[in-house]
Amino acid sequence: MSTNQKNSQSIRGGETATASAMYALMAELYPICRSITGEGVRQTLRILLRHIPLEVHEVPTGTPVFDWTVPKEWNIRDAFIMNARGDRVVDFRKSNLHVVSYSIPVKKRLSLGELRKHLFSLPDRPDWIPYRTSYYKETWGFCLSHRQLEALTEGEYEVCVDASLEDGHLTYGEYVIPGVSSDEVLISCHVCHPSLCNDNLSGIAVATFLAAQLTTGPKPHYTYRFLFIPGTIGSIAWLARNEAQVGRIKHGLVVTCVGDAGGFTYKKSRRGNAEIDSAAQHVLEQSGHPYVQEDFFPYGYDERQYCSPGFNLPVGCLMRSPHGSFPEYHTSADNLEFVRPENLVTSLDVYRQVIEVLEGNGIYLNLNPKCEPQLGRRGLYNAVGADSHQKLDQMALLWVLNLSDGAHSLLDISEAANQPFREIKRAADALEHCGLLRKCASDSPVQFGN
Amino acid sequence: MSTNQKNSQSIRGGETATASAMYALMAELYPICRSITGEGVRQTLRILLRHIPLEVHEVPTGTPVFDWTVPKEWNIRDAFIMNARGDRVVDFRKSNLHVVSYSIPVKKRLSLGELRKHLFSLPDRPDWIPYRTSYYKETWGFCLSHRQLEALTEGEYEVCVDASLEDGHLTYGEYVIPGVSSDEVLISCHVCHPSLCNDNLSGIAVATFLAAQLTTGPKPHYTYRFLFIPGTIGSIAWLARNEAQVGRIKHGLVVTCVGDAGGFTYKKSRRGNAEIDSAAQHVLEQSGHPYVQEDFFPYGYDERQYCSPGFNLPVGCLMRSPHGSFPEYHTSADNLEFVRPENLVTSLDVYRQVIEVLEGNGIYLNLNPKCEPQLGRRGLYNAVGADSHQKLDQMALLWVLNLSDGAHSLLDISEAANQPFREIKRAADALEHCGLLRKCASDSPVQFGN
Amino acid sequence: MSTNQKNSQSIRGGETATASAMYALMAELYPICRSITGEGVRQTLRILLRHIPLEVHEVPTGTPVFDWTVPKEWNIRDAFIMNARGDRVVDFRKSNLHVVSYSIPVKKRLSLGELRKHLFSLPDRPDWIPYRTSYYKETWGFCLSHRQLEALTEGEYEVCVDASLEDGHLTYGEYVIPGVSSDEVLISCHVCHPSLCNDNLSGIAVATFLAAQLTTGPKPHYTYRFLFIPGTIGSIAWLARNEAQVGRIKHGLVVTCVGDAGGFTYKKSRRGNAEIDSAAQHVLEQSGHPYVQEDFFPYGYDERQYCSPGFNLPVGCLMRSPHGSFPEYHTSADNLEFVRPENLVTSLDVYRQVIEVLEGNGIYLNLNPKCEPQLGRRGLYNAVGADSHQKLDQMALLWVLNLSDGAHSLLDISEAANQPFREIKRAADALEHCGLLRKCASDSPVQFGN
Repeated sequence: MSTNQKNSQSIRGGETATASAMYALMAELYPICRSITGEGVRQTLRILLRHIPLEVHEVPTGTPVFDWTVPKEWNIRDAFIMNARGDRVVDFRKSNLHVVSYSIPVKKRLSLGELRKHLFSLPDRPDWIPYRTSYYKETWGFCLSHRQLEALTEGEYEVCVDASLEDGHLTYGEYVIPGVSSDEVLISCHVCHPSLCNDNLSGIAVATFLAAQLTTGPKPHYTYRFLFIPGTIGSIAWLARNEAQVGRIKHGLVVTCVGDAGGFTYKKSRRGNAEIDSAAQHVLEQSGHPYVQEDFFPYGYDERQYCSPGFNLPVGCLMRSPHGSFPEYHTSADNLEFVRPENLVTSLDVYRQVIEVLEGNGIYLNLNPKCEPQLGRRGLYNAVGADSHQKLDQMALLWVLNLSDGAHSLLDISEAANQPFREIKRAADALEHCGLLRKCASDSPVQFGN
Repeated sequence: MSTNQKNSQSIRGGETATASAMYALMAELYPICRSITGEGVRQTLRILLRHIPLEVHEVPTGTPVFDWTVPKEWNIRDAFIMNARGDRVVDFRKSNLHVVSYSIPVKKRLSLGELRKHLFSLPDRPDWIPYRTSYYKETWGFCLSHRQLEALTEGEYEVCVDASLEDGHLTYGEYVIPGVSSDEVLISCHVCHPSLCNDNLSGIAVATFLAAQLTTGPKPHYTYRFLFIPGTIGSIAWLARNEAQVGRIKHGLVVTCVGDAGGFTYKKSRRGNAEIDSAAQHVLEQSGHPYVQEDFFPYGYDERQYCSPGFNLPVGCLMRSPHGSFPEYHTSADNLEFVRPENLVTSLDVYRQVIEVLEGNGIYLNLNPKCEPQLGRRGLYNAVGADSHQKLDQMALLWVLNLSDGAHSLLDISEAANQPFREIKRAADALEHCGLLRKCASDSPVQFGN
Repeated sequence: MSTNQKNSQSIRGGETATASAMYALMAELYPICRSITGEGVRQTLRILLRHIPLEVHEVPTGTPVFDWTVPKEWNIRDAFIMNARGDRVVDFRKSNLHVVSYSIPVKKRLSLGELRKHLFSLPDRPDWIPYRTSYYKETWGFCLSHRQLEALTEGEYEVCVDASLEDGHLTYGEYVIPGVSSDEVLISCHVCHPSLCNDNLSGIAVATFLAAQLTTGPKPHYTYRFLFIPGTIGSIAWLARNEAQVGRIKHGLVVTCVGDAGGFTYKKSRRGNAEIDSAAQHVLEQSGHPYVQEDFFPYGYDERQYCSPGFNLPVGCLMRSPHGSFPEYHTSADNLEFVRPENLVTSLDVYRQVIEVLEGNGIYLNLNPKCEPQLGRRGLYNAVGADSHQKLDQMALLWVLNLSDGAHSLLDISEAANQPFREIKRAADALEHCGLLRKCASDSPVQFGN
């Protein structure tokens, strides 16, 4: 991992540039009208292809995926509500949030009374446009600010949704970085929301840059699989198509809501005690960032599918402010102002640190387990003793020696010692170099206790 | 349980009537001089027979019951202390608490100095008469208010305890409501205290009305066994006579002190993690009533015997203010003013809810465990999504689906979801109706995990 | 243990005398210049021999002990820094702390600039002399108060360390008190510090008096092994020489820092849940003394070696203020004023109580496990019941009966009952006397449950 560390350092030197680049990617993706199918997803993936060589998959409408069926493909060209004077009082060209996602095509005249049944607004946030979908019930609707709604006068209106809902495909992106091992780390984000930044684009930006950095770094231990998928139906489709291989996924994270200014939130995997849960908790605790940890619950993002009882994969969700917890959630206020470059890059750094833990973690055996070894003659001990201020440097060494009994991983030791994983790993490397420690083969049985 | 629920609703409509009826029963039982044997218990059971068809058992004096022997039967007709002027200064006819229970017959004259050795009062509660017993040491005594004691002048007194202590029987009542299963729920209360309301009569009233309601309701899953027994020696006698069958008891509660105005107290079974412990804790937590939970300790009521290490039955004690914790305990102040109808009926309701949990609990299997099923096409999902305020209705469904892996009961799921058991059960019923869930046979091995 | 208890009582009567005697021993040992080898240790052990018949062991220089080698023996006769006027400005005869322990012989003249490289002081404690060692790097040095350092004027100085560092021996003392069982309790203290009271001499005093009292008392159940050893290299040498027998050690404590006025600190064994950990926690909790409990960490005293993963012995460390936590630590201020007689004797008492728990603990079986036995006819119950104030005496009996199911030790029961071990033991003795309880043979398999 020493090469990786150097790599990390140089990246850190360029943090400002990275932050700007992530933000620029997000800004570029912002205007696109994504949904769970359609050209918006394809356009999004094409832009990501300039950063990472992901593979685009197309699953035909009607394909059965477990209890579900891949829906018709939805595409939209234009939509508006026009008043009697011919003014577009609600205009899809101004914000793609104005149309309820998956609205069926419509073009007719109707009274304000009739129209109102198809309108959605937020009375207590009168300037914001809500975000609504109707994937599985064929209907149409418009979202608008409450001020817009209130400004509508009695009379006849023309509504137009120039959309198609036809057989086509569900599109998703997948990118695999092979590692030394075929064991996998899954990083999954959703690409199905239109102009929403924190919920959607921030996850895409972090996942993309994380993938790009792993690609240019040294070959990792794990194989990394990145998924850019529409929420729910996308993860269900992917799981259905890859059921035989999911056992390879040893750790996973769903990336979302990583660009706002809030503290971090780690939602544990359904297992609750998976290595990814410990790794995320450790990194957040040591990072000094404010954070909260939540037990798994069956709502949220695609961890719902990865953690369904038939799969129960060790996949958590590492975010900043959780969905639904900020007022801007699923409204036009989740925009390019709400997500900041510096938050994106800090989130990226936390993800990198979690990966550093996963990559470096392992169980080691103290080869000199009876009494402490003499660190002094190996240059690992300050020769003039008795100064309690000098002990700090040694503690990592002593913790690794004491707990490397085949039952504790380096992450366990970091937690017991309350020291950053990096310090414990450095100590383990030094002890291994001296022949005092040996890494247990990860797939051989572990020797316990003494 | 839907029939049961309707039944509960109609009862709830008639709560005031129930409260009055419970209180009236208690008032009728109040004047009777009960002890661990004798006519007082028989008279009490005869009154209960008007509510429930219980069976009266008579165990002869001298019968060995484990380490104990059924004692002589005690009956009392009259008792008094008379002063030199012929006034009854202490009179059993005014309160049966005046005589130490199990006092041997006595009729003699003695000086105040001699008499004092047989008198008990409460100096710090000068208006209250204490309650005392001497079951296993043959003696006699009087209890009186401290004011009465202080008013006694020097001189000679005549004391009379017109009682008999002779071979006879220990009497207890037992009432069994057969259920679909021979597995039993035990509800036990003591019937050995004289004019004491909270400690004794409140438990009798709640147990009787609970039994009556279960009798008129649909056939329950469990067989319910109600015991109306003298404390300690009664439960010991019952256990000795029924040792071979106690394995059928899957859950149990000792009912006592359920009429005062205090918050609820649940004292866990000795096992500490029995289903009855979880059920009582869940109901109290969700009820909104203030409550405390206590670990088992080997003192209190008949749970001492049910939870002796040789039986270790899953029997807890669900009460309001625990014995000894209120100043009125074991005094004449534990009277018809101290116990209120509305407290009795609220306690009854909590007991009913615990039974609702026991009856409805079970382990279910999600038959579509890979990814979430599509709830929408089964009418279980609001079709216009993306509104976080609508998710609440769904959460029970999602929790049941996610945790119905053969390792979690509905009660476990209620706890994980922090939702009332009733909501979780309703969700499970709906999912079972759709074919998405199947109840595991309760006596077949459970399938774990996936 | 009843004999032991009487013994304890008489000792308690003579607590003041004991306190004075412990303090006098400490004062006698104070001036000696101890190090990890040399005459200082031998002289110390000779003084202890007047109290307990310990055996003195000599391990030759060069003996391999696990990863270490027994070092050369260090002895010092004199040392000083002399100014140009011939004044000893730093003088070993005034305090043996003035010389860095294990300083190699030196006699030369050098400038103040050259000299400074060999001087150690504490700028923020300008009147205190620090304590320094250089066991494994051959060098020399002087420790002095910061005021002394600042008073040194420019010019030439003569330094002299009249010491020898030659092949010899490592010396330690060992004292074994045979018990009924060959299972051992290890009490270990270090004897390698020069004029330092709390860190070194207080532990020696408590260990010596504890050993003396166990010697004159009745034969204990356990065999007690006391070690008076140089820190680190001493315990390593002892473990290397006794590796085959360490399995006999069932409980152990490292004694140190037991004379200051701070509250108690118990540092758990590496196992964290050993019987010694429960016993120490129980005694401190019930003692009413302020105390803290710490998880094991691989620093401190010889528990580092006893708890190295290859041994993992159940050895904790019971002290008052932990090393490094008080400013006087490893300075001349850790002197005869810092340690007080009353603290020593209170520490001794806590150690005795821990031993009382270890000696008296055991698993018992309730021979009448079905319902409570009738305590009354065995004289174990107050015959006039119903007085909640009388229950206290009974609770220990009821707890012992309820939890003596083969799965709970008396110490477990003390914890569940939140009663002092002594009360629970007294109840168990009474019940055993009545034939209601039987002690399980400690080396036969335990019967669990019922």
